[in-house]
Amino acid sequence: MRKQFRDLASPEEARETIASLELTPEVERVPLSDARGRILAERVDAEIDVPGFDRASMDGYAVRARDTFGADEADPVELALAGEVHAGAEPDVEVEPGTAVEISTGAVMPPGADAVVIVERTEERDGNLVVYKAVAPGDSVMPAGTDIAAGARALGPGTRITPREIGLLSALGIDDVPVRGAPVVGIVSTGDELVRPGETLRPEAGQIYDVNSYTIAAGVEEAGGVPKLYPHAGDDYDEMERLLREAADECDLVLSSGSTSASAVDVIYRVVEERGELLLHGVSVKPGKPMLVGTLGEGSAYIGLPGYPVSALTIFRTFVAPAIRDAAGREEPQTATVEGSMAVRERYAEGRTRLMPVGLIADGDGEMLVYPVDKGSGATTSLVEADGVVEVPADVEYLAEGETVTVQLFSVDVRPPALLGVGEDDPALSRLLDRVPSPRYLAVGSREGLRRLRDGIPDVVVVAGDARSDGNAVELGSWTREWGLVVPTDNPAGVTGLGDLVDADLRFINRDTNSGLRTELGNAIATLADERGQTRHELVEAIDGFDRGMKAFESPARAVLAGRADVGLGLRETAESLGLGFVSLGTQPVHVLGNPDRTQKESVQQFGEILADGDDVFGTLSGYESK
Amino acid sequence: MRKQFRDLASPEEARETIASLELTPEVERVPLSDARGRILAERVDAEIDVPGFDRASMDGYAVRARDTFGADEADPVELALAGEVHAGAEPDVEVEPGTAVEISTGAVMPPGADAVVIVERTEERDGNLVVYKAVAPGDSVMPAGTDIAAGARALGPGTRITPREIGLLSALGIDDVPVRGAPVVGIVSTGDELVRPGETLRPEAGQIYDVNSYTIAAGVEEAGGVPKLYPHAGDDYDEMERLLREAADECDLVLSSGSTSASAVDVIYRVVEERGELLLHGVSVKPGKPMLVGTLGEGSAYIGLPGYPVSALTIFRTFVAPAIRDAAGREEPQTATVEGSMAVRERYAEGRTRLMPVGLIADGDGEMLVYPVDKGSGATTSLVEADGVVEVPADVEYLAEGETVTVQLFSVDVRPPALLGVGEDDPALSRLLDRVPSPRYLAVGSREGLRRLRDGIPDVVVVAGDARSDGNAVELGSWTREWGLVVPTDNPAGVTGLGDLVDADLRFINRDTNSGLRTELGNAIATLADERGQTRHELVEAIDGFDRGMKAFESPARAVLAGRADVGLGLRETAESLGLGFVSLGTQPVHVLGNPDRTQKESVQQFGEILADGDDVFGTLSGYESK
Repeated sequence: MRKQFRDLASPEEARETIASLELTPEVERVPLSDARGRILAERVDAEIDVPGFDRASMDGYAVRARDTFGADEADPVELALAGEVHAGAEPDVEVEPGTAVEISTGAVMPPGADAVVIVERTEERDGNLVVYKAVAPGDSVMPAGTDIAAGARALGPGTRITPREIGLLSALGIDDVPVRGAPVVGIVSTGDELVRPGETLRPEAGQIYDVNSYTIAAGVEEAGGVPKLYPHAGDDYDEMERLLREAADECDLVLSSGSTSASAVDVIYRVVEERGELLLHGVSVKPGKPMLVGTLGEGSAYIGLPGYPVSALTIFRTFVAPAIRDAAGREEPQTATVEGSMAVRERYAEGRTRLMPVGLIADGDGEMLVYPVDKGSGATTSLVEADGVVEVPADVEYLAEGETVTVQLFSVDVRPPALLGVGEDDPALSRLLDRVPSPRYLAVGSREGLRRLRDGIPDVVVVAGDARSDGNAVELGSWTREWGLVVPTDNPAGVTGLGDLVDADLRFINRDTNSGLRTELGNAIATLADERGQTRHELVEAIDGFDRGMKAFESPARAVLAGRADVGLGLRETAESLGLGFVSLGTQPVHVLGNPDRTQKESVQQFGEILADGDDVFGTLSGYESK
Repeated sequence: MRKQFRDLASPEEARETIASLELTPEVERVPLSDARGRILAERVDAEIDVPGFDRASMDGYAVRARDTFGADEADPVELALAGEVHAGAEPDVEVEPGTAVEISTGAVMPPGADAVVIVERTEERDGNLVVYKAVAPGDSVMPAGTDIAAGARALGPGTRITPREIGLLSALGIDDVPVRGAPVVGIVSTGDELVRPGETLRPEAGQIYDVNSYTIAAGVEEAGGVPKLYPHAGDDYDEMERLLREAADECDLVLSSGSTSASAVDVIYRVVEERGELLLHGVSVKPGKPMLVGTLGEGSAYIGLPGYPVSALTIFRTFVAPAIRDAAGREEPQTATVEGSMAVRERYAEGRTRLMPVGLIADGDGEMLVYPVDKGSGATTSLVEADGVVEVPADVEYLAEGETVTVQLFSVDVRPPALLGVGEDDPALSRLLDRVPSPRYLAVGSREGLRRLRDGIPDVVVVAGDARSDGNAVELGSWTREWGLVVPTDNPAGVTGLGDLVDADLRFINRDTNSGLRTELGNAIATLADERGQTRHELVEAIDGFDRGMKAFESPARAVLAGRADVGLGLRETAESLGLGFVSLGTQPVHVLGNPDRTQKESVQQFGEILADGDDVFGTLSGYESK
């Protein structure tokens, strides 16, 4: 049954195949108040004149111009006063030959009149009007249709409706606007282990939250489509099949991502083959190789996206969003791409197109630097570490440092961060970053942070302990934090210091090797080894779990809280905030170092000021002191 | 009662006063599916580990690493097989010392195990597992929290939520997102003569459609506010006062525009003074001098905008939108400004800041030209003729041709037109323009069109009749149209030709002097005058209404239809489409001429092709022929 696609399609073939899908929805009519951002489906000609009546443009008297011929200061004309007309009222009087009617600005010209004599050129005398100036037909009258004439072309098809077009439609009295329909895009979630955000997660059963459904839904909305999330069927494959059929009936396009289980893939194949046709299976692009494209019968299509979040968003942005925009009649926003230069050399030679997720940061001169992130780890955090994607053609072997590249942003709303920091994680730092506009902070640890500073990418690096940059990094600020052993509440094992960790039978959880906290622990162990006349290695060997290093500052403490460990490496602040016991082993400094090439950058200077003013942050945290 | 503000405030004072208004709304919580485009109000730290469990990253066997120490191909270790664990399932077995458990990628590590031996390095034998390789603790295991660790800083306050942030929030299971509230902006409509679009208009009573309410509402929405339109009170001032109080209670900001009637202004003053304070009355800026700023008591403010649509949108965009964006926590979109150079010299010396509405068009080299539009005419059509505003400081006397200026677009969604045409209006042209992507066409008439071409601004000019450019304009295409006298159905006055117009007592409606149709009529009258041995002037004088010239091609015919005239100048096509009678006076050519500096511009070449392929358009219109 299953078709064999021996060759991967090229990215161009994939684009063409997706462009060939029939996604364009019917024309809709929406109320004027909902028309902003939509695309006009048809030409709108004016059906009425604006203004819709001959309008006096001055205060004065409506007359028949012929009656004033020859009038001047020396030889005025006298007309009988026949009544008056005010703005916003219907005239109840006609201007017969030899008569005049008082009129105010904006009022409707009464029948018979073809001009207005301004009040300054007249005089009322004995119930009559004396006119001191001749007027021509049309004088001080704005004829009906002067602003917009009935029959005139007002707006063309394809016009994007912004506030100004709303204004023109208002003037024409149109409150029911024909617009391009928005394609309905169904999102079917296919992983057995996925749970929707907001629902209860059972990690002990291997469940994880569904990242792609809402991410892709937001992308669909941004591209001008209407996302429709179908309930999650879990491992009920009959229900999944029913949902897919329902989605195919209701939607212009159905998307799913990362069907890891063979059973789920089979369900999708079955529905695609039964109702439509599989057009493409596999694309020569990284990520996205397993992309699936097909039809689901009359007016509906299917695209299967990869499972890793960054890969799913990358493929969506590169291949699917353009098709949704086309169907909705939208142009790609101008700000959706950014030019920049590669901050590092990046090698790549796998013979297929690469969609490389990248981050962006301005250097000291305001030039945009581009650096690769997420080398296929599948990490969700890469989502917010990447600003967009650089498309590297299959025949390019490397991108040189300084080479200019074009970055397709993940969203028109994505802004590169104002400040890029890397290094140690720390609760005081988390709070200080709240005061920085648009920061990005990658908690890669002190050691990895210093390495990245040498690459010249980050603006600042945060280093815990005495480790220092070998360059001439500029210190922007520093503080000290109290560190030690986090133990269960009331310290049931009676841990008093590092010696117990070595001597007693305790399950320990460490930090990872990039952490400045682990370096500090290593130093303390070395000191203890000296005191005991043993080697550092001997002591480390005696600690059960010294090599179980965790990435984040709260993780060892949380393992203690969950009963998975007896002792964790951590901070007094963490222990206290989680209600755990704490055995202090000392304090360590945390230094914020500025990239020497960025000291003049506004955000770096601003961060320096925020650090200097951070006493209120340090004051509310246990074991912290500003230096 | 009414405060006197003798001096106009400077634009800077107006900005400061508006910035001082308290518009910032409360934090809201929205479902994840509605969070796109909103601004995160608080820092979001991870509350859970992602993944939430130690996860096997390869297919193999979960073991205690210590049990494999020393194992190699020559000296394997044998362990007892104790069961299996699959992805998405909770382990029901523990790994005791000396045992192993079969495990698949993504599955939860069973208790007791600290590493996975990959399947390739093992062999099952007699219900036991033979392990050919020693593993270290953590091998082929992704520990809980590797992707995101509980306690880690995930997103900072002020983060704009785009699809990627939706992804991170999903991963953390957050479906209830704290976001900056959107300021509620009430729009109160105050003109007596205004009618809401969609309602019935009584032009005979001087009514016009309300343009500003929906335009400003769309602008509010675009700036991140929530617009709230209040019902139109017409000339019921008690009701208007009640609505203003209601709006002040319900909204963070209340806007109205162009209260022309003194009574409406009094109502506004009364409510502002009673509940709050008038802060500013009049700003030294053109347009917008009558701008009013005040408070309406606790947490609500009032701004009065000018009445002309372009002026209202200009003042909104310049002064009000930034305050709404600030309150909503949004940045100004990057594409909201464009650099360009002045296409013409523009003088201005009124001693106050000018907010000059301008149009934009790319020249032949792709450089953006900026030209002024709408010199205070108040025309609604200027709304769609202007792309944005150039702020000219009070002390600048003129902008030189070629001078670089910054244009604040009316909306981030505004795109300069791809093709700018000017000249004659024509029904065939209206249809042909539907085929051009993003055209702007200003129906200023043939004569004015040629004048503008001499200024070098438009890409093309459309000229009816034999009038030709004095430059070296390039003809892109042409057609002929049949013109003559439009008369009521069945021609009750028995008009047979131009002679009747001169001789009989008929009310005539002409086109305006810029129209090529009027020039054609003038030529025909001159010929008739020659034939009769009279002067052209004598004949013109004998036509009642020769000087009543209307701006648009359908207008004279519509006047005939409405009984306001007996004869109108027009086209056979117009007469037939409106079901009127027609007396032919001949055919005239219509030429589309290209600006000689823009012949290589893509949109100009494209338009040329569309003209060449336009036979289907000419074929469906009466009296048309392509040439």
